[in-house]
Amino acid sequence: MKILDNGICSISSLQASGYKEGKYGVSILYHENSTAAAVYTQNKVYAAPIDITRKHLENGKISAVIINSGNANCYTKEDGMKKGLELAQLVADTLDIPVEDVATASTGVIGRQMPMDIIKPVAEESLKRLGNSRECASCAADVIRTTDLVSKECAVESTLNDGTVFRVAGMCKGSGMIAPNMGTMLAFIVTDLEMDKDTLQDAIRDSVQKSFNMVVVDGDESTNDTALLMSTNDVKGAVDDNFYEALNYVCTNLAKKIAKDGEGATKLIEVVCDGADSYDDAVVVAKSIVSSSLVKTAVAGADPNWGRIISAMGYSGVDFDPDNVSISIGSGDDNVVIVDKGTVTTYDDPEKLEAAENLMQKDELIIRVDLHEGKESATAYGCDLTYDYVRINAEYTT
Amino acid sequence: MKILDNGICSISSLQASGYKEGKYGVSILYHENSTAAAVYTQNKVYAAPIDITRKHLENGKISAVIINSGNANCYTKEDGMKKGLELAQLVADTLDIPVEDVATASTGVIGRQMPMDIIKPVAEESLKRLGNSRECASCAADVIRTTDLVSKECAVESTLNDGTVFRVAGMCKGSGMIAPNMGTMLAFIVTDLEMDKDTLQDAIRDSVQKSFNMVVVDGDESTNDTALLMSTNDVKGAVDDNFYEALNYVCTNLAKKIAKDGEGATKLIEVVCDGADSYDDAVVVAKSIVSSSLVKTAVAGADPNWGRIISAMGYSGVDFDPDNVSISIGSGDDNVVIVDKGTVTTYDDPEKLEAAENLMQKDELIIRVDLHEGKESATAYGCDLTYDYVRINAEYTT
Repeated sequence: MKILDNGICSISSLQASGYKEGKYGVSILYHENSTAAAVYTQNKVYAAPIDITRKHLENGKISAVIINSGNANCYTKEDGMKKGLELAQLVADTLDIPVEDVATASTGVIGRQMPMDIIKPVAEESLKRLGNSRECASCAADVIRTTDLVSKECAVESTLNDGTVFRVAGMCKGSGMIAPNMGTMLAFIVTDLEMDKDTLQDAIRDSVQKSFNMVVVDGDESTNDTALLMSTNDVKGAVDDNFYEALNYVCTNLAKKIAKDGEGATKLIEVVCDGADSYDDAVVVAKSIVSSSLVKTAVAGADPNWGRIISAMGYSGVDFDPDNVSISIGSGDDNVVIVDKGTVTTYDDPEKLEAAENLMQKDELIIRVDLHEGKESATAYGCDLTYDYVRINAEYTT
Repeated sequence: MKILDNGICSISSLQASGYKEGKYGVSILYHENSTAAAVYTQNKVYAAPIDITRKHLENGKISAVIINSGNANCYTKEDGMKKGLELAQLVADTLDIPVEDVATASTGVIGRQMPMDIIKPVAEESLKRLGNSRECASCAADVIRTTDLVSKECAVESTLNDGTVFRVAGMCKGSGMIAPNMGTMLAFIVTDLEMDKDTLQDAIRDSVQKSFNMVVVDGDESTNDTALLMSTNDVKGAVDDNFYEALNYVCTNLAKKIAKDGEGATKLIEVVCDGADSYDDAVVVAKSIVSSSLVKTAVAGADPNWGRIISAMGYSGVDFDPDNVSISIGSGDDNVVIVDKGTVTTYDDPEKLEAAENLMQKDELIIRVDLHEGKESATAYGCDLTYDYVRINAEYTT
């Protein structure tokens, strides 16, 4: 697997663009007669663009995606649907494609009508800038940001068992927050490997589960979350595990970037739960730890307060023997065991505590717990909780 | 119902004390041959004092309670049990009561052995100070604090239907935090009304459910949470609803004080969910809103961002029609309807938005939502999320 440098435009036949004025940005992805599938928020309250995309993807056919930032177009009723479709129609008219082949996504403030007098000219300008270049990819990834500090891209090239060379390229926006996490997560992944809509649907569902859903706490989903997987169908080959590996790599890489770009965050926290009786148990424990605001503030303060870790495991609801768990803290290749099958190793060895404190200064941290109950593992991603989180969210203007 | 001024010592036959050195405090409550019942954390990982109290309360008989702050005595194994019992024995020896009649509770750092060389002398000094006075009550409530900014007391006098005058007095520690909430909540309620252990058990379980559990997010419980209800049995009378009303008043008053004393908090948030199909639905929706860190930061910034409220309702998992909900913001007797059965009233009336902004400046805020699905209601309590929350928790020394 080879890392590619051109972001979403690593797919050579794809055209992309991004343009922003003030807080209103519009990105476009364009490739005629692509196939696509998507997964959406499970929030009971969801935005108009989700309704539109769900309907337009029913036949699995797609030619363009329009994504706007600055307004979520959520809780906007009939008027919101009308305006979402108006944007799709603008794309369809300009590119001479059916409106049904245009998917939409929005992120921004909930419960405000879309200011079409501002957004439409931005969309028109964005459409003019469509192209396949490093700059086009960068702009597309850049203008969908809201509170994201950095834009997020990842692309890889890999080879199927039958020798076919293919690419997977993605961009996303979102920033990891304190649970409950309500920052909108939008992800757009494009491959040039030919695939029908059912294969795309299964692939995006599974891959999102292991990546983006391990950042976003289950159920605490934004009104606008969307992850879309699209194929330009340029490359023919027999889809095998190498494709899923490449897709998972891109999704996990993007998910980690979301976690690390938590509002005000300074550190990426990776929590691995090993030795669980079931995969679901592993997921629940890993997420419980990574979502604990007390663990997150402890990480911000580089304080190896493992009591907060075991308490978060304890209230996760998963059954395990507290006197038989192991907890370690690591970064890169370094690792310090703090609790070894229920025995606190730092009581008699203060140097271990110091070593753990040193590791917690690093900007990428791995907290590993082993329940010693079974063989299943899961990894969740999060960030530390700092002063700036509060500043950003208290001042986010409605 | 009359408010009493003497805190836990409003029960005239009860003796109380509190003494603290550095971060280690010990409170004692003492009344021979009382009856008691308690509810405890449901965290899978729980502290040694909970084991001790659960065992000692089996027969419903109690004469004293010893509460220490500074060390949670949790994840401390056999040694922790030994030290917890040692403290109970010290109380028993000094007061000449059976050790089985002493309940224990702890709050502080998890996973450190109790420094008995410090705590025992503090306990001895506390025992010397037992008495029934305003000062004794204040000290008892004061020294069990950890990150609490203020000590929390409440006492009332009321009358049963048969004319019997009785009292309910309580003190607690705990501070409302971001979900998941892991700050230890300890509450001790004393009444002089005679009651057997089964009546006490039902009473404390029901009252905690409506009060403390509406601050603490379900399942996200500390390793040490304990709420204990004790009767000195001084007053004989037929327990009726007037007792439960008085008990609920004391518990809810204390719970609100916990919510308002959230680490770094400046405002009390009360979320009322009306019109739910079931009580459980109402609880889940109210808690989902009050726990949302985006709602909490919006309140800190006095920003009536109702989109965050409806999103928190949407991911609560409760079934409702988003196009038929009402949302209002109030304080005291003032109230502004922001969403009226799905219609956003502020679109055409910017003065309403301004009125809501003004209400959000107040230090006690009521967010009221109506699902219009049924007739059940529930109220949850929380606080705003400010810079200081992060400061306090990042620097809380292990």
